[in-house]
This record gives sequence, C-alpha cells and structure tokens, in this order.
Amino acid sequence: MGESSDLKKQMEFLAEIDKLKNIFRQSLLTTDQRRENDAEHSWHLCMYATVLSDYAPEGCNMLRCIQMMLVHDIVEIYAGDTYLYDEEGYKTKKKRESEAADKIYSMLPESQEVFLKGLWTEFEENTTPTANFANTLDRLQPIMLNYYSRGEKWLVNKVTKEQVFSKWKTVARSVSNEIESFLENLLDECVEKGYLLP
Amino acid sequence: MGESSDLKKQMEFLAEIDKLKNIFRQSLLTTDQRRENDAEHSWHLCMYATVLSDYAPEGCNMLRCIQMMLVHDIVEIYAGDTYLYDEEGYKTKKKRESEAADKIYSMLPESQEVFLKGLWTEFEENTTPTANFANTLDRLQPIMLNYYSRGEKWLVNKVTKEQVFSKWKTVARSVSNEIESFLENLLDECVEKGYLLP
Repeated sequence: MGESSDLKKQMEFLAEIDKLKNIFRQSLLTTDQRRENDAEHSWHLCMYATVLSDYAPEGCNMLRCIQMMLVHDIVEIYAGDTYLYDEEGYKTKKKRESEAADKIYSMLPESQEVFLKGLWTEFEENTTPTANFANTLDRLQPIMLNYYSRGEKWLVNKVTKEQVFSKWKTVARSVSNEIESFLENLLDECVEKGYLLP
Repeated sequence: MGESSDLKKQMEFLAEIDKLKNIFRQSLLTTDQRRENDAEHSWHLCMYATVLSDYAPEGCNMLRCIQMMLVHDIVEIYAGDTYLYDEEGYKTKKKRESEAADKIYSMLPESQEVFLKGLWTEFEENTTPTANFANTLDRLQPIMLNYYSRGEKWLVNKVTKEQVFSKWKTVARSVSNEIESFLENLLDECVEKGYLLP
C-alpha cells in the first residue's frame, strides 16, 4: 500500500478494527444461539439511537452519539470484553482499556487520534447528555437480547432483576420516563416468565 | 411487552433487524476465513465515513450519511444479499428489495417509516453528495477486505481488475482524487501479487 501518508494510516486503522468482528460478547442473538460480537452490537446500538431519538435527553448531539457508539468498544480488540456482572474483570478493566486506546488510536493522524479517543473518553465518563443517551442504550440493547433469548445468559449467571435494574440506574441518569417504565414492565415480565431471578 | 404504543413498535422493529447479523456477504474478514455479515459490514462502513470524512464531497451531510449506511442493507433480511458480480441476481434485486423495504419499515410509526425508507431510497438512487459518499465507501470497503484476504473471493469468482474498477466508477461519481489514486495503486498491487486477474 505505497507511501506513508495520512490516508495510508487511516486505511491501516480501518483494517485493524476489522478485528472487532471477532470479539464476542455474552449476549445471544434473538434468532439463534450464537453470541453477538462487538461490531454487530455497535451497529445495533446506532440503530437504537436512530429509532429512539425522540427519547434522547435535551442537549444530546445525535451525530456525536452515534459516532461514540461506533467506537465505544474498539478498545476491546486488545482489552477483551468484560461481562457486566464479572466483578474481578471490572477491577482491571479501566487500565486494560486505557492502554488499548493508546495503542489503537495512535495508528491514526494526530487530530483523529484526539477526536476518536475523546469520543471514547466521553462515553466512559458519562457526564454529558450525549454520553448518557449512548450509555443508556448500551444497557438497554443487551436486556432486549436477553428477553428474546428467554434469559438464557441471565439464568446461567444467576442474575437477579435487582442486579439488572441497579446496573441500569447506574448509567441511565437522564432517561425518559417512557423508556424507564417500558423497562420496568419488561423486567417484571421476564421474572414472571422465568427468564430472570426475582 | 404490554400495550401497542409507538415505543412498542420501535422495540419490535429493533428486535426484527437483529436478523441482519445472520445475512452473510461474499467478503471474508481480514483475520480469518469467515464471511462478513451485513451488520458488521454496516458498522465498518460507518467507521470508514468517520475516519475518511476529510475526503467526503462538498455537501455531504455526515449524520445522514452514517444513518444511510446503518440502514442500507436492512432490506436484505428478506431479500437476501446479491453478490456484486451476480448478473442473474441483479435482474430481480430491485423488486425483491423494494418489497422487503415496504415490509420491514411498515413496522415503525409512520414518520419513521418515511424517514428510514427515504434514507434507503436516497442511497439506492445515488444522486446526492451524501449518497455518493456512502456508495463510494460501500464499494471501497469490500475491496480492502479482498486485499487483506489475498483476493480469495475474487479468484474463486474469476474477477478482473477491469471489473472491479468499472463497478467502482459506476457509483463513485464525486470521489476525491486521493482516494481514487490510492485505489488504482492498490488494484495494481493486487494484480501483481496474484489476488486479482489483470
């Protein structure tokens, strides 16, 4: 691929992140027993943001929100996926991911390194309306996949409704009442159907 | 999932499109021999748009471009993927995809049905700078995957450099000179390395 230009760096970065398609999460797809990977998950979140945009908090920048979701898991190419209920994994998550971010984003021209790392940092810090909407959807989507796969992963990991709801509340700070009440009803239905421990 | 509200329709649509993760394309991933699916492909295209935004034509709306790429293959859930060099498949592609679009987007509240179908139609018609950038990247990304998988799929399908380049020119109407000259060099390298027929 010829000389070392900005374009070459960008194309090499775009090839490197192809590896996100092989980082598998705990969630199962709705239609079969295969686990979802990070690239599919990121696409699905962007569709959540597009379709649920009416429920975004005031001040949410939709382009930035979608770009944040596109990149939010890229560090997992080097740091691996950490399951939401894995307490041990969470102890080292921050350090592993921060090193991964330095490694992967330094492949890009400097201004883009700053931009994409900034998106990821904003997502992790979760202090802006944009990041808050992104984080909320990042919690909502796996709950929906768990619902459609009859709670198989929740049951294996002995997850309770209280755990799901408290993890949700941790990030979903400015979510619309309509989404929150939809979620509460859904979790009740999951308990009723035996997908989730009470 | 309770009463029939707009939110319920939206959540059902978001569950239905999970099936895009099981629509497999011809392209192989860079890291192994597995074929890429449409959800992964769509995520990757959005990353191409984000990273290559400096090369977008004047008048390209980046949010619309990314949302166009998010939805551009959703019709394939019902219509299937049509390989770029499959002449028979292309004869029925338009009709199959148009029926699929009616079916899937009618799951949504009307204003969103119009919005998302509009994005897909704009992509297909390819007459705006936004659609042109999206279509250009939709051609570029599989070429990059073919390069990294040493042209395996090109060789199986006896694809020539002339074919790749003419398919590219068909959609890439206002692409930057820098991207086009990058591509020309890359295709020459592919021929030289035996990944692509001359």
